[in-house]
Amino acid sequence: MTRKLHLNAFLMGVGHHEAAWRHPRTEPSRLTDVRHYQELARIAERGKLDSLFLADGVALQGNVRHNALGGLEPLTLLAALASVTDHIGLIATVSTTYNEPFHVARKFASLDHISGGRAGWNIVTSASEAEALNFGVERPAHAARYARADEFLDVVGKLWDSWEDDAILGDRAGGLYADTGKIHPIEHAGHHFAVRGPLNTSRSPQGRPLLVQAGSSEDGKEFAARHAEAVFTAQQTLEEGQEFYTDIKRRLAAHGRQPGDVLVLPGISPIIGSTEREALHLEKELEDLIIPAYGLAQLSHMTGIELSEDDLDRPLPDVPTETEGAQSRRKLVIDLARRERLTVRQLLNRLAGGRGHRVVAGTPEQIADQLQEWFFTGAADGFNIMPPLLPLGLSDFVDHVVPELQIRGLFRYEYEGRTLRDNYGLTRPASRYAARLEAAVAG
Amino acid sequence: MTRKLHLNAFLMGVGHHEAAWRHPRTEPSRLTDVRHYQELARIAERGKLDSLFLADGVALQGNVRHNALGGLEPLTLLAALASVTDHIGLIATVSTTYNEPFHVARKFASLDHISGGRAGWNIVTSASEAEALNFGVERPAHAARYARADEFLDVVGKLWDSWEDDAILGDRAGGLYADTGKIHPIEHAGHHFAVRGPLNTSRSPQGRPLLVQAGSSEDGKEFAARHAEAVFTAQQTLEEGQEFYTDIKRRLAAHGRQPGDVLVLPGISPIIGSTEREALHLEKELEDLIIPAYGLAQLSHMTGIELSEDDLDRPLPDVPTETEGAQSRRKLVIDLARRERLTVRQLLNRLAGGRGHRVVAGTPEQIADQLQEWFFTGAADGFNIMPPLLPLGLSDFVDHVVPELQIRGLFRYEYEGRTLRDNYGLTRPASRYAARLEAAVAG
Repeated sequence: MTRKLHLNAFLMGVGHHEAAWRHPRTEPSRLTDVRHYQELARIAERGKLDSLFLADGVALQGNVRHNALGGLEPLTLLAALASVTDHIGLIATVSTTYNEPFHVARKFASLDHISGGRAGWNIVTSASEAEALNFGVERPAHAARYARADEFLDVVGKLWDSWEDDAILGDRAGGLYADTGKIHPIEHAGHHFAVRGPLNTSRSPQGRPLLVQAGSSEDGKEFAARHAEAVFTAQQTLEEGQEFYTDIKRRLAAHGRQPGDVLVLPGISPIIGSTEREALHLEKELEDLIIPAYGLAQLSHMTGIELSEDDLDRPLPDVPTETEGAQSRRKLVIDLARRERLTVRQLLNRLAGGRGHRVVAGTPEQIADQLQEWFFTGAADGFNIMPPLLPLGLSDFVDHVVPELQIRGLFRYEYEGRTLRDNYGLTRPASRYAARLEAAVAG
Repeated sequence: MTRKLHLNAFLMGVGHHEAAWRHPRTEPSRLTDVRHYQELARIAERGKLDSLFLADGVALQGNVRHNALGGLEPLTLLAALASVTDHIGLIATVSTTYNEPFHVARKFASLDHISGGRAGWNIVTSASEAEALNFGVERPAHAARYARADEFLDVVGKLWDSWEDDAILGDRAGGLYADTGKIHPIEHAGHHFAVRGPLNTSRSPQGRPLLVQAGSSEDGKEFAARHAEAVFTAQQTLEEGQEFYTDIKRRLAAHGRQPGDVLVLPGISPIIGSTEREALHLEKELEDLIIPAYGLAQLSHMTGIELSEDDLDRPLPDVPTETEGAQSRRKLVIDLARRERLTVRQLLNRLAGGRGHRVVAGTPEQIADQLQEWFFTGAADGFNIMPPLLPLGLSDFVDHVVPELQIRGLFRYEYEGRTLRDNYGLTRPASRYAARLEAAVAG
């Protein structure tokens, strides 16, 4: 079978461009309207996309004075989207830092049941000070967050495996509902967590919901190599994309994994026009709606550099010493400004579309060319599609770019199966407890 | 307007009777099938019921060898039910003991947005040892759990109020999305929690999702008097029901509340037949499917009395000293056995239908008589309906008991509004921060 690319629709409010809410083609009042997201899910499924994805944080971050913030909690929303779709994968962001593994395992197992095997978890560790302040704790250091995340994943995996696939007997006449020999207390006792188990939700259709990760720091990449089955990443240039792709794949062997076990999906915000001129016009329209004060605050937060409106037409000031937080995104932004010798204002325009993700304006053919190039030259297994305006940018992608990819033999015409693992071509894991039993019998 | 009663459909797997899964009219494989619950929600809405409700715990409790356990997490499930219904309230159980207020506030606010104002929270404090063991902690004492719950509710209420109703401006031309003077950090610093806020989900249609409580201990009743807007309760006799009802209503004044601010909804499991003989036949069918070992374990857990199959045809042994946990249910069960001089086997049969809730077998008219009597004699504002078999028991109730209640003028023919508060006839609370501002201006 020819290698096909995988496409994920990254949904964000009324669009990824920070000025999307001001554009006449969006309706910002739909930010908390489930019908908006249901429409988006149906559009993405019409385009046979592998999955849709919702980012998240547990604090109000960014200046809500100038942007449409304050939307819905992803896991709750995805359950409402499961009801109106049949094939598309549903990926929610949930933090390992301010949660308990029992709750997280159970909610994702429930979403996997509800969606018939379409749940995925984008694992984040909540880097920000604002988030720590909503949970009454000091912001944990980077390494501490990842150490907790590692053990968290261990516990969640055990809980998902705690009911073997054939634990339920359903023997009405004999009065035997389940074989309790196949439902296992996990008896986890670690550094961060002590969890007896078993889960009180039976094993879900995918066995384990799909694990996704998006941190690109050294710790993040190692975490991905150990746990992730798909990686979302921001890469500005083809060379950086190739380097990241090779780096992730190379790390897998040390964990007994194959290159095909993890899909690398760089983000791209496609600004689509039926002509290049039309695409550039839309890009300019959005640029004209940018509020510099909003972008400056975002950029200050991202880089740790204090910036004011006086800095707009100067180059980015020199970089202060390293700070905690989203290091890899910070490096990307500073590299971008240096490489292209951008003023702060130019940099804001470049970041407004995708917060550091690549923005490409062009015709459907030009967008497809870009995707094809990255796919064929070892930079991507697929893409995280970030429409600048929603729903418009998603329907344009589905109606114009997807057919172009299909004609080129790069993308599916029909879904291969019913689960997210089927869409991504990944295997369904066996329960570790079942395997142990078989090994014991064989021994 | 004539006083109408309020009806809540308490959904539990394939039925409330502990042998429901063995009855030929259920399909236990539907325990984790969202379509089962969607069908139940549509039936309840066809019957114009006020709300539906899902109980929960955070451990596998009860012997899964002999009962259909291991279902779905309620909040996630309710979001999937919101998509297929328009009017019915959606009430999920979530514990204050093993959760963080920020997450709980956000998930319920999200469910309230998704459902267009139909979310309710049944607040529990997780009494069991099994639950504590899934979170690596010693089981907290009764008073400590309620102290935490009190502060938890305080934080959640502040977070729900943190965006005033008119905080969102949506001024595209001016670039002003929100009036940040109307989005308030809550700056909560208490004994159990330190939470800065504001919530990162805007204020939801009901302002605050409805608060429901079901503990009937002294602490539980005081908690209800302070916070609850509806109370679910197990009461075996009319006299006990009246006493409980009067007790709850009497406690309200001390908290500046009116008797109409809290609805008291006793549980009832109606076993419905088109003749009394048919109803009793169904009751007997279910009784014959009971597995004594299962009921014994439940009864031992509930009462703290160790019981074996040798005890089946003897009276309930003498009661040991008080234990921690669900005290009020324990007292109810022991009182029931004493009052009616039941053997352990007879007691198991009485508990199998509703775990201590009242079970009434009869014709639709006889069931309606019972509801009417409690409603007219100061024991209930409505009922928590616990069908023995699902969906059958719910559709029988909706198709035969509801019309009887409507003819008697006791129940609505059409929904009065769109929100759960509309259904329950409860007002929408204003944001405490908006009120403070008005007071400051007035002063």
